[in-house]
Amino acid sequence: MLKFNEQQQIDSVKGALMIRPQIEKAVDEIQKEGFDGLYFIGIGGTWASGMQVEVYLRGRSSLPVYVENAAEFITTGNKRFTNKSVVIFSSVTGSTTEMVDAIKKAKEVGARVLGFIDVEDTPLAKLCDTCISYPMNEQLKFYMVANRLMYNNGEFPDYDIYNQEMEKYLPMALVEVEKKADEWAAVYAKEKYQYYKEHPDMPHYFIGAGNQWGATYSYAMCYWEEQLWIRTKSITSAEFFHGMLEIIEAETPVTVFIGEDEQRPLSERVAAFLPKVCKNYTVIDTKDYELKGIRSEYRGSVSHLVMHAVNNRVDAYMEKEFRHPMVIRRYYRQFNY
Amino acid sequence: MLKFNEQQQIDSVKGALMIRPQIEKAVDEIQKEGFDGLYFIGIGGTWASGMQVEVYLRGRSSLPVYVENAAEFITTGNKRFTNKSVVIFSSVTGSTTEMVDAIKKAKEVGARVLGFIDVEDTPLAKLCDTCISYPMNEQLKFYMVANRLMYNNGEFPDYDIYNQEMEKYLPMALVEVEKKADEWAAVYAKEKYQYYKEHPDMPHYFIGAGNQWGATYSYAMCYWEEQLWIRTKSITSAEFFHGMLEIIEAETPVTVFIGEDEQRPLSERVAAFLPKVCKNYTVIDTKDYELKGIRSEYRGSVSHLVMHAVNNRVDAYMEKEFRHPMVIRRYYRQFNY
Repeated sequence: MLKFNEQQQIDSVKGALMIRPQIEKAVDEIQKEGFDGLYFIGIGGTWASGMQVEVYLRGRSSLPVYVENAAEFITTGNKRFTNKSVVIFSSVTGSTTEMVDAIKKAKEVGARVLGFIDVEDTPLAKLCDTCISYPMNEQLKFYMVANRLMYNNGEFPDYDIYNQEMEKYLPMALVEVEKKADEWAAVYAKEKYQYYKEHPDMPHYFIGAGNQWGATYSYAMCYWEEQLWIRTKSITSAEFFHGMLEIIEAETPVTVFIGEDEQRPLSERVAAFLPKVCKNYTVIDTKDYELKGIRSEYRGSVSHLVMHAVNNRVDAYMEKEFRHPMVIRRYYRQFNY
Repeated sequence: MLKFNEQQQIDSVKGALMIRPQIEKAVDEIQKEGFDGLYFIGIGGTWASGMQVEVYLRGRSSLPVYVENAAEFITTGNKRFTNKSVVIFSSVTGSTTEMVDAIKKAKEVGARVLGFIDVEDTPLAKLCDTCISYPMNEQLKFYMVANRLMYNNGEFPDYDIYNQEMEKYLPMALVEVEKKADEWAAVYAKEKYQYYKEHPDMPHYFIGAGNQWGATYSYAMCYWEEQLWIRTKSITSAEFFHGMLEIIEAETPVTVFIGEDEQRPLSERVAAFLPKVCKNYTVIDTKDYELKGIRSEYRGSVSHLVMHAVNNRVDAYMEKEFRHPMVIRRYYRQFNY
């Protein structure tokens, strides 16, 4: 399998799950002290991860949890944000300008800040009240925070069983997803390149809902646009029916991400509609992956990780088919703008 | 001027401003009774209008005001939504399935509902605690609600002066925007058609921020995609720099909507970046329009209406240049899906 290190993947997820005591300590302190609002602040991919955890909590928890875009927070601000508010964020480099400014602003107001920063030694880390350093697995870390918040709020009675199950089965289950998706992903990438050769201007349409929406949005923008320089458009499954459907024709390239949370029916509706007007669409359904050991009622809470695993395989083959090293950038951080 | 009835436009906005006593009565009742959350619920264009009013209030008011997508509300739901919550929505037809289901669900929970429905006699109207019927001007109605909410909450001391000024000057100011934009819009539409002939697959990129974001999103999706069948992608000015910038090249067609609220610097940054990598971009800046009689500090609160007026002119000429009657639909409400 191309660019795949099974043990490394297992260790990465396992290690993330092992930082649970640190997360629990930080979350318990936050809830013991109380807060008037808890804000996941991000930009680009980290904002998308914030959207994923917000929609997860929205339907399950009465806690006041919100998602804020860092650039909007430093311009428009938020009048409900006070010194009793809490910020949670994640950053790989700890150097994204908008994030640094947003966290500075939050500290000026007097809010408490919990940061997940991959690199320990950054200026951003110094601004955090609590900083947890562990590489990658941002989406998983946010969900671990969410689960603890709900547990402390009496909204997650089987928290212990859930975690035991995840710690025992999730790392291997996600690796198995990658293995199962591998052959399909190679074909998919080949087809995308063939199509692209003939239609370089045509955007690829990505559609998703619920805790797949963050994945849909950031996969289209942060992977295909930023890292592969391929045009995309992403739209939520619900909004698709209120405008975008009109530009779908027989050959329009579309990929639908279907997860297993409460918004699944919205994406199933798209998948049922598409064959009537289009024959160039792909459905990636997390339900097609076994996730051995994880009971059905927990599957929705990891759908976004399953999709991420599938897309790891797609990335590997897209990079190869398009002969486009995913690390290069045309403009991003290449000059001042 | 093509498809332009000056007096009708003036009367339309004037009439909307005249429903203020009805709006004030409804809002005063809501605030007298108190609420734990006020939710603008919408889908498609009405969701976009909700986003515009939410971002307006976010920076100005400590009131708990949120925007909800109707389809997400009926699937994921919102655990913080209670019988002490308030829903505000707008609907032209009163028959959009997701809206009917969302309002039914809100009523089941026991929430109070204020509806703006263009047509008085719809099933949706019967579900409202208060229903205000006046055609069009949805964005203006929402901002009138917002202004009254802030006034009652001690956050809008010059409410009376503001309204006097708007009632005296806004209808004519917006008509003057259309007149000033007309000649430019005719050229813009012609250029878009010329480009489209050569590049039918290429999406047109729309970028905007703050209270222009709802306008940007819905203009791209509800007008160009739905009504003109032209590919588009819309992105916020802040997010543009976190992925989408990479697919902009010299000839990529881009339009930036710049308004005059707190997020203006985010869009100015896009406008400053684009010339370095692209020569096929257009900036529509509300600052270029006089708005006679409206003082500078109020301009940001009507930027979205100014942009709407400019785009009325664009629509008229796009419809003509593309020979595409904007009323026709390929799929929407044409068959069951």
